[in-house]
Amino acid sequence: MSIFTKIVKGEIPSYKIAEDNNYYAFLDIYPNAKGHTLVIPKQEVDKIFDLDMDTYTGLMQFSYRVAKALEKTISCERIGMSVVGLEVPHVHVHLIPIKGMSDMQFIKKEKLSKEEFETIAEQISANFV
Amino acid sequence: MSIFTKIVKGEIPSYKIAEDNNYYAFLDIYPNAKGHTLVIPKQEVDKIFDLDMDTYTGLMQFSYRVAKALEKTISCERIGMSVVGLEVPHVHVHLIPIKGMSDMQFIKKEKLSKEEFETIAEQISANFV
Repeated sequence: MSIFTKIVKGEIPSYKIAEDNNYYAFLDIYPNAKGHTLVIPKQEVDKIFDLDMDTYTGLMQFSYRVAKALEKTISCERIGMSVVGLEVPHVHVHLIPIKGMSDMQFIKKEKLSKEEFETIAEQISANFV
Repeated sequence: MSIFTKIVKGEIPSYKIAEDNNYYAFLDIYPNAKGHTLVIPKQEVDKIFDLDMDTYTGLMQFSYRVAKALEKTISCERIGMSVVGLEVPHVHVHLIPIKGMSDMQFIKKEKLSKEEFETIAEQISANFV
């Protein structure tokens, strides 16, 4: 069972943004930038293009709604999107409120307190429609 | 008019992979890795989450089909996807056949000849369904 499946099941805590029957969005605890969010399908599949088209489409549409909530909540130049997946073998879409290219390169991490994570998650969640 | 609109109109040449009424896919001429492809909506919009949901969904579904063609054509660990957009103000999805994280960071570029670009584009295009 992947670490992300454990998060979905509540066995590992997460700063949840939004959830429906098939998808789950939560804050990355090693954020490239403030508000960096992961969107995953509940179905545990390693590679994004191994998802069937319907599950993939739903994931992308759920990500769009999360990105809109991020735009409303976090001051940034734009929301960047990245899918790599070399570390956790469970599809995850990175949505990152970026100010420049370095926020997309996974080379520097923002330090946030538990209270900051909680506050940000609540704010983004409140803007999710 | 963006450089990508000029490519769609044929005013600037490109190594085309696939096209339909609304989307256009072509090789990035400054590839992070061999087969690095850009997928764009023909509609000239700067930021991906400013696309309406239907256009965005179509772009993602077109990108999925291109990614499948890339997987069939190029030897790689997986296809990475990235949307940043800080340089050209016209939405573009990067699809990159990656072997490691550095292929996603836009820090190194592959040198290919015109003939290599042409051959790769033909091969990917032939695998596009």
